Amino acid sequence: MSKVRVESFAISIDGFGAGPNQSLENPLGEGGMALHEWALATKTFKAMFGEEGGTTGLDDQFARQGFDNIGAWILGRNMFAPTRGSWGDTEWEGWWGDEPPYHVPVFILTHHPRNSIVMKGGTTFHFVSGGIHAVLEQARAAANGMDVRIGGGANTIRQYLEARLVDHIHLAISPTLLGAGKHLFEGLNLVTLGEQISA
Amino acid sequence: MSKVRVESFAISIDGFGAGPNQSLENPLGEGGMALHEWALATKTFKAMFGEEGGTTGLDDQFARQGFDNIGAWILGRNMFAPTRGSWGDTEWEGWWGDEPPYHVPVFILTHHPRNSIVMKGGTTFHFVSGGIHAVLEQARAAANGMDVRIGGGANTIRQYLEARLVDHIHLAISPTLLGAGKHLFEGLNLVTLGEQISA
Repeated sequence: MSKVRVESFAISIDGFGAGPNQSLENPLGEGGMALHEWALATKTFKAMFGEEGGTTGLDDQFARQGFDNIGAWILGRNMFAPTRGSWGDTEWEGWWGDEPPYHVPVFILTHHPRNSIVMKGGTTFHFVSGGIHAVLEQARAAANGMDVRIGGGANTIRQYLEARLVDHIHLAISPTLLGAGKHLFEGLNLVTLGEQISA
Repeated sequence: MSKVRVESFAISIDGFGAGPNQSLENPLGEGGMALHEWALATKTFKAMFGEEGGTTGLDDQFARQGFDNIGAWILGRNMFAPTRGSWGDTEWEGWWGDEPPYHVPVFILTHHPRNSIVMKGGTTFHFVSGGIHAVLEQARAAANGMDVRIGGGANTIRQYLEARLVDHIHLAISPTLLGAGKHLFEGLNLVTLGEQISA
């Protein structure tokens, strides 16, 4: 069966997957960009945004592996848009421009369904309610035998971990402190949930 | 002025400095020994317990630096003994045998003062109440210009961090999950406390 994977998910030394006070200016919360410096510097990420160069070492290897065999993504609503609640400005098409780096169907978890958006390059954003199990079922069907990658944020990953639906998680602990924000592990006992370190 | 240092303090990926259910059999809590595998494998730690060999790389370098210029230690009561409350069995002399690896005065934070214990090799255990500020003052005086190392546990370090009394902390994130136990950062905002990553 296809796997459910979290890849290249970065947390701070104090365990936060995003900083405090997320906003249009700070989609990752205050200080949150520092979590992703390692990833953004890689050849894999630079190529996704049409840039040349980038690092080619271990970081790039992990970044690249994270995209292997992914047939669909799941994102929390807060990963897609800075707004909350009902969709006021339906012209918002995500943070990633005309051609987002997904190139496969992307399922956005929301309590407020809306019409799908077809982007350039194979990405289609679907806005689905019904809870994490129902969304995973749709994503699996769309992935068509390939794996489903849960992109985040921390709350979404935590829900899937709690439900024991994640097969594989690659965490990157970035050398930064955020102090507050979205904590990946808060209230989770990963040992009783059966998680084990493989590497 | 002499510095207050936390050195080689190991936490799990999920942020715990000790596992759940600390006891005489599991002084570091269930699973807690895994936090210290890197340190126990070093030449520095092996030598402290009279053993030969051990690793001599980066881990050993950090382990060794942690002992440089230390004139006194502070330990939480739970680092010294598995018992809580008043000292029933006053024959308990710590986990470390006749000749503990400190070789300087060690101040044990407790609400239950008792007579000091002079051990072989220069270690004296002092049992002091009066709160973290008072204990630090005594430890500084005993250190006589050298630094004071706070050995742990997580609760003790957290109290000193909250009071902004720690000058330097070296954390080691060990590749293990504990799920529960003593969390080093819970309730702490290290950013507003002014902590910064130096390396």
